[in-house]
Amino acid sequence: MSQDPRALTELRAALGRVRPLVVCLTSPVAAPLTAQSLSALGAVPVMPGHGDDLPSAVTRCDGLLVNLGSSDGARADLFRTAILAARAAGRPWVLDPVGAGGGAWRTALARDLARQAPAIIKGNPAEIRALVGQDAQLKGVDSLDDVASALDAAQSLVGEPDGPQAVLITGPRDACVSAAGLAWSEGGHRLAPRVVTMGCTLGAVCAAAASQRPAAEAVHLSAQAFKVAAEQAGGRARGLGSFMTAFLDALDGAWLEEEPEA
Amino acid sequence: MSQDPRALTELRAALGRVRPLVVCLTSPVAAPLTAQSLSALGAVPVMPGHGDDLPSAVTRCDGLLVNLGSSDGARADLFRTAILAARAAGRPWVLDPVGAGGGAWRTALARDLARQAPAIIKGNPAEIRALVGQDAQLKGVDSLDDVASALDAAQSLVGEPDGPQAVLITGPRDACVSAAGLAWSEGGHRLAPRVVTMGCTLGAVCAAAASQRPAAEAVHLSAQAFKVAAEQAGGRARGLGSFMTAFLDALDGAWLEEEPEA
Amino acid sequence: MSQDPRALTELRAALGRVRPLVVCLTSPVAAPLTAQSLSALGAVPVMPGHGDDLPSAVTRCDGLLVNLGSSDGARADLFRTAILAARAAGRPWVLDPVGAGGGAWRTALARDLARQAPAIIKGNPAEIRALVGQDAQLKGVDSLDDVASALDAAQSLVGEPDGPQAVLITGPRDACVSAAGLAWSEGGHRLAPRVVTMGCTLGAVCAAAASQRPAAEAVHLSAQAFKVAAEQAGGRARGLGSFMTAFLDALDGAWLEEEPEA
Repeated sequence: MSQDPRALTELRAALGRVRPLVVCLTSPVAAPLTAQSLSALGAVPVMPGHGDDLPSAVTRCDGLLVNLGSSDGARADLFRTAILAARAAGRPWVLDPVGAGGGAWRTALARDLARQAPAIIKGNPAEIRALVGQDAQLKGVDSLDDVASALDAAQSLVGEPDGPQAVLITGPRDACVSAAGLAWSEGGHRLAPRVVTMGCTLGAVCAAAASQRPAAEAVHLSAQAFKVAAEQAGGRARGLGSFMTAFLDALDGAWLEEEPEA
Repeated sequence: MSQDPRALTELRAALGRVRPLVVCLTSPVAAPLTAQSLSALGAVPVMPGHGDDLPSAVTRCDGLLVNLGSSDGARADLFRTAILAARAAGRPWVLDPVGAGGGAWRTALARDLARQAPAIIKGNPAEIRALVGQDAQLKGVDSLDDVASALDAAQSLVGEPDGPQAVLITGPRDACVSAAGLAWSEGGHRLAPRVVTMGCTLGAVCAAAASQRPAAEAVHLSAQAFKVAAEQAGGRARGLGSFMTAFLDALDGAWLEEEPEA
Repeated sequence: MSQDPRALTELRAALGRVRPLVVCLTSPVAAPLTAQSLSALGAVPVMPGHGDDLPSAVTRCDGLLVNLGSSDGARADLFRTAILAARAAGRPWVLDPVGAGGGAWRTALARDLARQAPAIIKGNPAEIRALVGQDAQLKGVDSLDDVASALDAAQSLVGEPDGPQAVLITGPRDACVSAAGLAWSEGGHRLAPRVVTMGCTLGAVCAAAASQRPAAEAVHLSAQAFKVAAEQAGGRARGLGSFMTAFLDALDGAWLEEEPEA
């Protein structure tokens, strides 16, 4: 089933009006696609380095992304500093527990941060399962578990004190779990999950969206918009490289103005 | 007003003849576009890591870029080591004070490095204002101040002992400020400032150009060449993704040989 | 001489069947192209950060890449941890001694790691020469020595106790040196060596291939496949930017299915 393309238009309009500032703590491999995707949608990414400057950066921002990819102990200290500042300033923050369920250090870090009142947790089924101590089947940072198998874990997280307001479980169909219930996002394109850090990028977009909408709505809108952009990009792509280019074009939407028939 | 396309041809010729080696100390998010852009123009980027090897790398290089994006204390130590080596060896170095005027730590670092005899400082208006202690309006690392508002600050920096020989203030029109006066670069394309780290990339190209030309001339030529490349890329782009691809193609210029009518 | 395109088809089939998990320890500038290229070929990249989680990640992987680009002391500790785990678990690992022959610290590190039983060492001629203490002529991390000048060094490395099973020397023609003798890979495209981190990406692909084939065969197949992909990309490229996009498309091969005449 294809997504209604209006989800992407709506997200772009919501972000383009305000140009929300999103502090992104993410991995080197994810940083370029994350930054360009946020900019294509109208948001403003910033990727600070020094802990002393982080609280003021987070206080001035509209949303915060904490992505555990390639993290180490020094990075974990930055995460904690940023999360404290976000909570103090009332800024929504998104946890992307990349690799939870893999190494023990990463899993413990993810489980701890998941209980620090994130607005949103976005992960694949294995990562979401790992956050509540269930067995998780990963290949690298990809999930071998399916989305349905993580619904209970997501529901459980949402019900915890200082748990997330919404959980996005990514897969062929994305599930958004919140107190309001369950919403699915369908469609997309087979090349999208093959782009490394596509999920990391979606987490950053959730942080931008959460600055403008309630958490559950932000998650569902972001997930739908990514499915739409993937469908549009898939129609223009010859493979992984041109898909990435066309995906950024689709997020941007500039070409639509010039090609109304597309 | 469109730029004369000869600026890009001239820069490419100047760099392609010598293939200057440019040591780039820059952020993870900026590193890929910076590296490919330098290579597209004919320069040779190198991104060293270990402090012990840095003085010899800088001594062998033709130009040095110090970009403060995502920096922390360990990174600041690398900056100082590299700058000392560049000054000792008489190599031109470029300061890109990313985020100066934002956090206090970053601002203090930028102000200190600005007085260590850079050949060039390249920044947005807010960053340049922050270097002389003026109020700076930033959104993330983007400036809310306009170029004209930073002209006095740039002039003041140029006049300081161990200040820069030239300052490039980036904006819709770029201003190059030096002892020779003020020069503007116009044109470009609306998508260029939306590419995250496009300004970082321009700073690296200034370092390459400064190895072949006096600082003020290197700045003006680099700024003009970027406006030309942005115009050429804009004519082929459907959005942010294809603009980035076409921008690298334009810097490269290989396609011109095959499509003389373009 | 053009490569037989079947090398690329064969590599893609070998990796796509198994989807080998490749732990990549590489530099920020190389990380995006490395990750997307592995994924385009059907492998699964993972880029861990924390030393505590590294042994378990390596034990679960199919191949390991150790790339010295932009490395420092903390990174060197990660390399050693990963290599110990790979050897203990019997996983093939690939050394890419980026910049060996440049700084003294990097050269010493590369020489030490080269004697820890890598399956494969992939380097340019200067780097391979530096590993056996011969003079090396580098410009940044690019070699000024030619491939033939490094054949003796490669042969010597292969003959050492705990030396590599195969050495890939990259250049206009790539040489694969092993106990089975010498094999050349020809063809490619003039834009390929101008893409920064293209060699780093080839090293990662060697690690993926080494999980499925004996080292010498993995090296030769990977080198040939890269030449084929470069030829296919060159036919579609307008310059460095579109070459990178088309190269990822060529590795992917998805478009071949839709355009059988191409």
